[in-house]
Amino acid sequence: MPTNEPTLVSDDVLSVAPALRDYMQGDVLDDLWKRPQLSPRDRSIVTLSVLITRNQTLDLPFYLRLALDSGLKPAEISEIVTHLAFYAGLGNASATIGIVKDVFGERGIGAGELPPANPKLLPLDAAAEATRAANVEKNTGPISPGLVQLTADVLFLKLWLRPDLAPRDRSLVTVSSLMAAGHVAQITFHLNKAMDNGLTQEQAGEIIAQVAFYAGWPNAFSAVPIVGEVLKSRDQQSA
Amino acid sequence: MPTNEPTLVSDDVLSVAPALRDYMQGDVLDDLWKRPQLSPRDRSIVTLSVLITRNQTLDLPFYLRLALDSGLKPAEISEIVTHLAFYAGLGNASATIGIVKDVFGERGIGAGELPPANPKLLPLDAAAEATRAANVEKNTGPISPGLVQLTADVLFLKLWLRPDLAPRDRSLVTVSSLMAAGHVAQITFHLNKAMDNGLTQEQAGEIIAQVAFYAGWPNAFSAVPIVGEVLKSRDQQSA
Amino acid sequence: MPTNEPTLVSDDVLSVAPALRDYMQGDVLDDLWKRPQLSPRDRSIVTLSVLITRNQTLDLPFYLRLALDSGLKPAEISEIVTHLAFYAGLGNASATIGIVKDVFGERGIGAGELPPANPKLLPLDAAAEATRAANVEKNTGPISPGLVQLTADVLFLKLWLRPDLAPRDRSLVTVSSLMAAGHVAQITFHLNKAMDNGLTQEQAGEIIAQVAFYAGWPNAFSAVPIVGEVLKSRDQQSA
Repeated sequence: MPTNEPTLVSDDVLSVAPALRDYMQGDVLDDLWKRPQLSPRDRSIVTLSVLITRNQTLDLPFYLRLALDSGLKPAEISEIVTHLAFYAGLGNASATIGIVKDVFGERGIGAGELPPANPKLLPLDAAAEATRAANVEKNTGPISPGLVQLTADVLFLKLWLRPDLAPRDRSLVTVSSLMAAGHVAQITFHLNKAMDNGLTQEQAGEIIAQVAFYAGWPNAFSAVPIVGEVLKSRDQQSA
Repeated sequence: MPTNEPTLVSDDVLSVAPALRDYMQGDVLDDLWKRPQLSPRDRSIVTLSVLITRNQTLDLPFYLRLALDSGLKPAEISEIVTHLAFYAGLGNASATIGIVKDVFGERGIGAGELPPANPKLLPLDAAAEATRAANVEKNTGPISPGLVQLTADVLFLKLWLRPDLAPRDRSLVTVSSLMAAGHVAQITFHLNKAMDNGLTQEQAGEIIAQVAFYAGWPNAFSAVPIVGEVLKSRDQQSA
Repeated sequence: MPTNEPTLVSDDVLSVAPALRDYMQGDVLDDLWKRPQLSPRDRSIVTLSVLITRNQTLDLPFYLRLALDSGLKPAEISEIVTHLAFYAGLGNASATIGIVKDVFGERGIGAGELPPANPKLLPLDAAAEATRAANVEKNTGPISPGLVQLTADVLFLKLWLRPDLAPRDRSLVTVSSLMAAGHVAQITFHLNKAMDNGLTQEQAGEIIAQVAFYAGWPNAFSAVPIVGEVLKSRDQQSA
């Protein structure tokens, strides 16, 4: 296992780019992570989601330990990996398995703390699901009936109802992953769902700041207008 | 070499996310891969193209063996890697060389089964190439004359005419790679080319379902409206 | 350390795809890299930026050595890594640290040749910065005030003013990274800035050709219309 520090504050960075240690210690660890607009637990959810979505495993041990220290439960981390198998891709989940296994082992986290494969699912919001399914059927049914069926069976009737990650946190994972991969077209649906599930406007804006550092500024700025449209449309609806 | 199973059904996954083993064995290997809308050979082409495009090499040995077992010839796999050097990037091909070499070695596949560097090329469809070249010259010539010339010399007068991967399969590689990387702007041209080369409407829709699992749901849903427009425009042309 | 050749001309490639060796030696190393529209030093800046942005570290030692041999100074490489920590993401910089350290070590490059963490900054173009800041405040302030503040404090009042990479080269890094990641929405601002800083129209077009090989043809073609719009708008302004 690597030592418990991110690469950019390691001694190695002094042989390449000493400025990066100052940026990482000062602007990232001492400033960004302590901004009050998002809790350290939320920042851990965003950061793990970004790193897994981008297949960046090098510093994952550090961020997994930080997540556990920030109050994220092993079962929640397990669900984040499971969720991103579908929203980032099976290979993204695969690349994390060995690393999460080692960190869980190091902390003495056993199988008893993990969610079961087939838990009792959360109750389905049948009305919202009917609207979603009708929408997808209309737009996607004539093109890819397989995708329509699998989206219902695998995602919305199963994955999203798994109880060991709160719907608001599951949405936070999804929105962070979408921003990290530049999938702006899907942010509207999922940010609305996140805010329906309790994410605040201030938190939505601050996710973008966290994403800027971990997925690069361009992904952050690409997300801004879409997030702006969602906030505006929700303001109008509640006016 | 890793053992012949994907990471998500390995014992390690039980220490991280037991649900993922059920998803991978049930929804992916036992269901998705057996859906009749695409043959296992086609699913292998899609999956290899997605993994190489996304630089996801961890389970590549498993999927290479599955591809060979599903009827893909070593020469076809060789051409897929060569094709993706240009459609995904030189580094994506580089990252696969050592892995493909090991799997070929394990199966006793020698240089005699690989396509020659300079084979007799397929005949050029001069009319289609003239249309393509005129289009690119008009749009791109004033901006990047180098790109115009290299696109003709390296891709359309050479790569696309290599005989050891059928044009329909070469198009399947290209479309899968475009979807996996979120390059929706280029899907229109290449899906039309794929369907001109024999890909059916049902297969086009099912590629999206396979891409959903291996490149994440957002890439699949981003592809849907573009694929829909192509299908609609072809319906109108044939009406 | 790997031997000093790219994977695609290694002996291994003969066991997988012999054609790739011909492509790599002929079309890439002997042709592309010798085209006069961009100097080898500029091609090194583009290529390093693309590889770091795409997390493709396998052949990075070769391209780092080629960059040093092409006249790029160690301090400039250090600044490229630092710059991409923000434009590609912290994890992208992290993944290069060990590799750059080894190549610098091999060449006897010590800490004395690296930029200090806190150098005397270049003078700020206060008018241009006021325009940029007002623009971002207007579009982004109501959505993510954190991003607005961090963009000023971390990037435009600090990173962009670091003196060991010329503004024109810093822009070249940024534009190459944007093209490599498909961030077309941000190319307009940064290509204009690059051309304000001295990048020529011919060079802008040739960057796209270099990006085609190292980030794949689809990223190159996605950049073309945006680059075209920038060139056209600058023609009109100067008419």
